[in-house]
Amino acid sequence: MSGLHTPLCDHLGIRLPIIQAPMAGGPTTPELVAAVSAAGALGSYGFAYTQPEAIQRESEAVRARTGAPFSLNFFASPRPGSIGPGAQRGAIDAVSGYYGELGLPPPEPARAPYAPDLDAQFAIAEEIRPAVLTFHLGVMHPERVRRFQSLGVKVGGGATCVAEAEKLEALGVDFIIAQGAEAGGHRGTYLRDPYDSMTGTFALVRLIVRRVRTPVVAAGGIMDGAGIAAALALGAQAAQLGTAFIACPESGAPRLHKDSVLAAREDETLITEKFSGKPARGLANRFMREMQARAAPQLPFPAQSAITGKLRATAAKAGNPDFVAMWAGQAAALSRALPAAELVARLEAETLECLDRLATLRR
Amino acid sequence: MSGLHTPLCDHLGIRLPIIQAPMAGGPTTPELVAAVSAAGALGSYGFAYTQPEAIQRESEAVRARTGAPFSLNFFASPRPGSIGPGAQRGAIDAVSGYYGELGLPPPEPARAPYAPDLDAQFAIAEEIRPAVLTFHLGVMHPERVRRFQSLGVKVGGGATCVAEAEKLEALGVDFIIAQGAEAGGHRGTYLRDPYDSMTGTFALVRLIVRRVRTPVVAAGGIMDGAGIAAALALGAQAAQLGTAFIACPESGAPRLHKDSVLAAREDETLITEKFSGKPARGLANRFMREMQARAAPQLPFPAQSAITGKLRATAAKAGNPDFVAMWAGQAAALSRALPAAELVARLEAETLECLDRLATLRR
Repeated sequence: MSGLHTPLCDHLGIRLPIIQAPMAGGPTTPELVAAVSAAGALGSYGFAYTQPEAIQRESEAVRARTGAPFSLNFFASPRPGSIGPGAQRGAIDAVSGYYGELGLPPPEPARAPYAPDLDAQFAIAEEIRPAVLTFHLGVMHPERVRRFQSLGVKVGGGATCVAEAEKLEALGVDFIIAQGAEAGGHRGTYLRDPYDSMTGTFALVRLIVRRVRTPVVAAGGIMDGAGIAAALALGAQAAQLGTAFIACPESGAPRLHKDSVLAAREDETLITEKFSGKPARGLANRFMREMQARAAPQLPFPAQSAITGKLRATAAKAGNPDFVAMWAGQAAALSRALPAAELVARLEAETLECLDRLATLRR
Repeated sequence: MSGLHTPLCDHLGIRLPIIQAPMAGGPTTPELVAAVSAAGALGSYGFAYTQPEAIQRESEAVRARTGAPFSLNFFASPRPGSIGPGAQRGAIDAVSGYYGELGLPPPEPARAPYAPDLDAQFAIAEEIRPAVLTFHLGVMHPERVRRFQSLGVKVGGGATCVAEAEKLEALGVDFIIAQGAEAGGHRGTYLRDPYDSMTGTFALVRLIVRRVRTPVVAAGGIMDGAGIAAALALGAQAAQLGTAFIACPESGAPRLHKDSVLAAREDETLITEKFSGKPARGLANRFMREMQARAAPQLPFPAQSAITGKLRATAAKAGNPDFVAMWAGQAAALSRALPAAELVARLEAETLECLDRLATLRR
């Protein structure tokens, strides 16, 4: 049987050089991750906001569905210290009007800890021993990387600039995910001002591939087989797609989020830090535009998520897009509502068709 | 002989699906355009700021060097009305301190007309009758497009979003240049806020290719054959490269500009509207950072260029990068100081090598 193949496929034990991006906070479910992995790509679970017990439960639910390799993803960003209620006043006031519009009282101050303990998350990940573990928004401790690798876990990290890629290579990761500016969700930048590190996928992948020897995975704006072929042309050894999987029936994204990416006809995304405290790309809406325009105060990541949480959830349930964080990349308009296994099969077929087409460009 | 080929090559009468981007204001010279075209790609002259007599002289200088097709490019943006000296005060004050640092008096108010007359530019272009004419930053009048086409001139326009591409298709252009956010120089956006139209090349090319039937040319972040192959994978019928040609000996860019792109190791570009009045991408420097940070007042495009002109020229001569507009794309760090013909030959060879490599990814 004819198929796609890169050396990284062997290294990760997957058939196809396609990774379903981890999407913490809803979209990733055991059903999605298992379906992607069983289809020959690498399913990834976004566990940034998940407590250890749930990480274990969800990972077992994936394993109950497939024996194929899958990946766990964590945010390696430093956790902020406790923020007193007084210091939260401005950020709470900035969103209270929106709560009022939905008939809700202003949010309670966020209570520390604002995120699950990273050591505890990694401790359970060691027990789970996934085929692959990736991190985003920072770097893991070198000993932690080596520990996972000694357990047979392949480790990947995200980079948004050459300097971050070089740091990951020095850390000895198995692969580097080059996250172009097109990508939906949180910018992984940790060495620069994220707004100075908005390099497009096309430029970023090529800059990083030319600078490091570690295998590179391209992420950002990839939605179909032509995009995967383009990523491989740029020298990436795999393509990571997130938004492409949002509308899958197995995805846990709210109906509103799925409908919105499917309805998009243009790049209508923006970067905002007002939902979580760190810049992330999503479908533009009223909350993003207004909060950004008046430079509303915000809590540091991820405490800001706590004070926008009920607003987001209530609006999503009501089908009101104004206040929902609908993370999506710039090519969201190419979304398809296909079962994950069928999407993976189409991506493979399209990539092969694209390679056939490229072969005809020689004369 | 084996070579690259797309249907657009036949339509434009060129051997290779590679276009040297028009770069108005210095980089494009008869030597550069002629060398690129003679080598089988499409050389383009950036005539945005050039008066008709000089357009004719420079075009004749290209033709004296080669019989190969070449392209002329114009800015189709509306010209601003006359701005009184009083209304220029704030913009002049905002730059006067920088003039003072170089021992120069504050600039004189800009005097209308701030740009060459577009009708006069198009009238001389009709006489020159180039193989190709492209426009940027707006749309040409439909009758003007048809007039050029009736003379055998192929017409191309720039788009930064799907809506602009659809408008160009309705206009009947021969090809659409999808200008991704990576691209150096002026953003061509004319239907949206340019800051809402910063879609990366990867996403933009694919979005546009999937929406229109007109051939698409990919631009932004393409510096080598792998990039050209990736553009072709995305469905573009040619790749347009600007920054890649800045450091060529035939380029008229100042030494400082050439040295700076060659020295880049990372994406250190930013978008600024403070040099010309419209957003453009260049190597980050003090002028861009400071003027942007204090939201300094500016004149509308291109009048702002007049009041920054002497500052830019004096600093460039002195080798001082602080005040020079060094337009460059996000992958400038991949620049090479090669003669244009040799660069075109390498781009072709690299693209073919990349297609060979892609063919080995099937197993």
